[in-house]
Amino acid sequence: MAVAVDLNADAGESFGAYVGGLDEEIMRYITSVNVACGLHAGDWCVMRRTVALAARYGVAVGAHPGYPDRQGFGRRDMTMSAAEIGDCVVYQVGALMGFCRAAGVVLSHVKPHGALYNRAARDPAAAAAIAEAVKSVDPGLILFGPAGSALVEAAGALGLRCAAEAFADRAYNSDGTLVDRSRPGALIDDPRWAASRAVRMVIEQRVSPVTGPDLPLAADTICVHGDNPRAVEFARLIREALTGAGVEVRPFARS
Amino acid sequence: MAVAVDLNADAGESFGAYVGGLDEEIMRYITSVNVACGLHAGDWCVMRRTVALAARYGVAVGAHPGYPDRQGFGRRDMTMSAAEIGDCVVYQVGALMGFCRAAGVVLSHVKPHGALYNRAARDPAAAAAIAEAVKSVDPGLILFGPAGSALVEAAGALGLRCAAEAFADRAYNSDGTLVDRSRPGALIDDPRWAASRAVRMVIEQRVSPVTGPDLPLAADTICVHGDNPRAVEFARLIREALTGAGVEVRPFARS
Amino acid sequence: MAVAVDLNADAGESFGAYVGGLDEEIMRYITSVNVACGLHAGDWCVMRRTVALAARYGVAVGAHPGYPDRQGFGRRDMTMSAAEIGDCVVYQVGALMGFCRAAGVVLSHVKPHGALYNRAARDPAAAAAIAEAVKSVDPGLILFGPAGSALVEAAGALGLRCAAEAFADRAYNSDGTLVDRSRPGALIDDPRWAASRAVRMVIEQRVSPVTGPDLPLAADTICVHGDNPRAVEFARLIREALTGAGVEVRPFARS
Amino acid sequence: MAVAVDLNADAGESFGAYVGGLDEEIMRYITSVNVACGLHAGDWCVMRRTVALAARYGVAVGAHPGYPDRQGFGRRDMTMSAAEIGDCVVYQVGALMGFCRAAGVVLSHVKPHGALYNRAARDPAAAAAIAEAVKSVDPGLILFGPAGSALVEAAGALGLRCAAEAFADRAYNSDGTLVDRSRPGALIDDPRWAASRAVRMVIEQRVSPVTGPDLPLAADTICVHGDNPRAVEFARLIREALTGAGVEVRPFARS
Repeated sequence: MAVAVDLNADAGESFGAYVGGLDEEIMRYITSVNVACGLHAGDWCVMRRTVALAARYGVAVGAHPGYPDRQGFGRRDMTMSAAEIGDCVVYQVGALMGFCRAAGVVLSHVKPHGALYNRAARDPAAAAAIAEAVKSVDPGLILFGPAGSALVEAAGALGLRCAAEAFADRAYNSDGTLVDRSRPGALIDDPRWAASRAVRMVIEQRVSPVTGPDLPLAADTICVHGDNPRAVEFARLIREALTGAGVEVRPFARS
Repeated sequence: MAVAVDLNADAGESFGAYVGGLDEEIMRYITSVNVACGLHAGDWCVMRRTVALAARYGVAVGAHPGYPDRQGFGRRDMTMSAAEIGDCVVYQVGALMGFCRAAGVVLSHVKPHGALYNRAARDPAAAAAIAEAVKSVDPGLILFGPAGSALVEAAGALGLRCAAEAFADRAYNSDGTLVDRSRPGALIDDPRWAASRAVRMVIEQRVSPVTGPDLPLAADTICVHGDNPRAVEFARLIREALTGAGVEVRPFARS
Repeated sequence: MAVAVDLNADAGESFGAYVGGLDEEIMRYITSVNVACGLHAGDWCVMRRTVALAARYGVAVGAHPGYPDRQGFGRRDMTMSAAEIGDCVVYQVGALMGFCRAAGVVLSHVKPHGALYNRAARDPAAAAAIAEAVKSVDPGLILFGPAGSALVEAAGALGLRCAAEAFADRAYNSDGTLVDRSRPGALIDDPRWAASRAVRMVIEQRVSPVTGPDLPLAADTICVHGDNPRAVEFARLIREALTGAGVEVRPFARS
Repeated sequence: MAVAVDLNADAGESFGAYVGGLDEEIMRYITSVNVACGLHAGDWCVMRRTVALAARYGVAVGAHPGYPDRQGFGRRDMTMSAAEIGDCVVYQVGALMGFCRAAGVVLSHVKPHGALYNRAARDPAAAAAIAEAVKSVDPGLILFGPAGSALVEAAGALGLRCAAEAFADRAYNSDGTLVDRSRPGALIDDPRWAASRAVRMVIEQRVSPVTGPDLPLAADTICVHGDNPRAVEFARLIREALTGAGVEVRPFARS
């Protein structure tokens, strides 16, 4: 059986006159896209265009719900209760589903954004609220989250399908968490190194953390960034390296 | 065959700590509810609660999309293109559909709110954009609009089912349009008079305008207001008068 | 020398079509008003009206800056850095100062709102940012905060004048902090008891906490609530009790 | 006496993570800056940074109030009453004045943005509301507007000082209005041509419209754009051409 993996990136982060990413360029290399839903980024016009772009490139469409904090780009934690988070996720997933239905496209997955992703990874109540919200809208939706996280556990407990996500261009701590963005070395800035890490994540299911021995790592989907010109180069080189190593790159939703 | 009509009201207009209507009281008397979708009024928590309330009272749920203008409560016209309006409607209808799916409730209709309703009634391009947006999300949705309006025409041209809406507590001009809210006498403040007008609208399909002879009037659904204590009395008296006159009051969606 | 105290309340919390308080009724009994600045509550029209109302009743005007969280009414903590908080306070104080200048009224004080008030009371970095922001706009502004709090300390360190605030209708813990709103008994619901507590706070500078012996308490200004009909009764009875006990009730800014 | 002119540009249009212009580069060539006030663009952090930048480069600071429409970047007309517009301008001018006071900088002028600028140019009621709002906050503020516009007339009637604004890189109609942005040729894309037009506007006080004979034109301040790399080149070439022609380029506020 061929080894396979999904490549995902965030897109649809533009807002009104503000341009937020190189959506079309990145769409050429990825197989799943996480579309901002108008709260931390994006708006209704951008959502329609992004879903159309994904359809054109055959990329699986996912909702990328975030905190309602446009100024902070969803990267600041907010004191929302688990119930409020659940409602906020239903709202965003529903809104994107509207655009998918309008475009004749299937909404395939949900990946929380930024501070909500981080909270869902560690806070069981928030994770359960998100998983229940997603399931309540469509039990066929797939949740993207870090392997072993509270989010993946909560989704599993509800019978939702999950994709374990790994990051080719982020350094890992020895406990399997990501090195905080504010630390030096947190972001891997050599695209060839990122590409070779991605290949190893998929083929060997291992990653080398900043200190200590190799870590085992599940990687159903690998996240690449799409918000700067170098990110497109990263995506291209990661995709080429995976293909070159005989890895099938296809949407997790079609696995 | 028994004569029948639908009674609809807006609800879910609360926002955070602000209370916007007597949703539960009005829900006892109506058969269709138009739920604000978080742009001109409402929020995700209010939407979930309002859909649950509608389910409890057996009221058909509709989306009530408005302009993205919370400060103006969607009552100020905005210079949005028809395309932007369409996207904005997909967003709102999709978001409410998310809550309906979560509650196991069918989303049955869409009624534009405030200034968007007025624009849809007279602007064919906006009307077409709204009708196409609604159809693109779900071709089974019903559009509520004034009989003979651009909105109803656009919906009909696309094969969407429409409900002609009449207003029991608003005065009509001799051309069939509503008297502007700013004019004296625009709002009928005697609930018994409003109730007898509602009965006549349904049984005789006629209304008496402020000047001139009676007007013919189609009334598949009658709008009542739900945002003040007297409104609940209006709804109750209108419902009782209709029932007393032998009219069946049931959701248009179930007609 | 006559004993004197200030009575303050929040106002200007309406927003668009949403009514947020009984501003005019409460204005009759208070001597300082904290005006919402359009982020957690209020808007530019409400701000103008509220400043005009304060001018009519001779009430000293203060800015009531809060977190930019209208849905949460500024009651949810947000992960804003101290620098962001400072900028956000300059923005709000400046905006209200615009309305004061337009009305020919002096802006006399600043009182942070809700979760920002609580954070400023305990977080020295946030407190310093707020105090610096206030001083940078106008070094003559007075800061309202709980006696002994980080906010009052930060303001004092910068040479800003402070008013120690006490709450007549809130229960106190034995360490001088307020009982959390979610606990039973946190809110005192008998206006006569609240009034007698207010008198004791001013005359004896003491309060009886939920457990343990009396606490010493500084009270330059006593906060009353203005957002429900009973609140107006509270304000009236507190004012009458103070006056009846020979206490002069006047704006702290004029002390 | 030396001929003199002011060069102005909009800045501070970034918002959260979104970057909106090359503020520092443009600041080297202009003498007055119009700072977005957080409604159509900008935020409190951006406002503080932009005022600091202007102070560093010795550029006169103005408020650039716009409609409260971030998604439309203030370029869509909104149905706000003249009274609402006035309040909205007080709010924005006050907020920016807060940052000026904090930075020890004088707020020198106000220039409405986008659709509000266009409305103020032609709608006497809106123009009067804006002029009154500006005067009410500070009667020493200067209003920037097109020569002969309703805004300049309203400001003059109140005794406010005005600067007549001309556009070096926009084509003019034979009636002195700007060619609509949507028309071909509306934007002059050759910076050398724009520079020579600017010189002629100042020295000869004339401009050549798209058809017909030369128009007389008052130009106290010339607007240059600052939102793309070419705009910086435009600003530099216009400034160099003016200086080369012996024109003194200095803030209108210091004339």
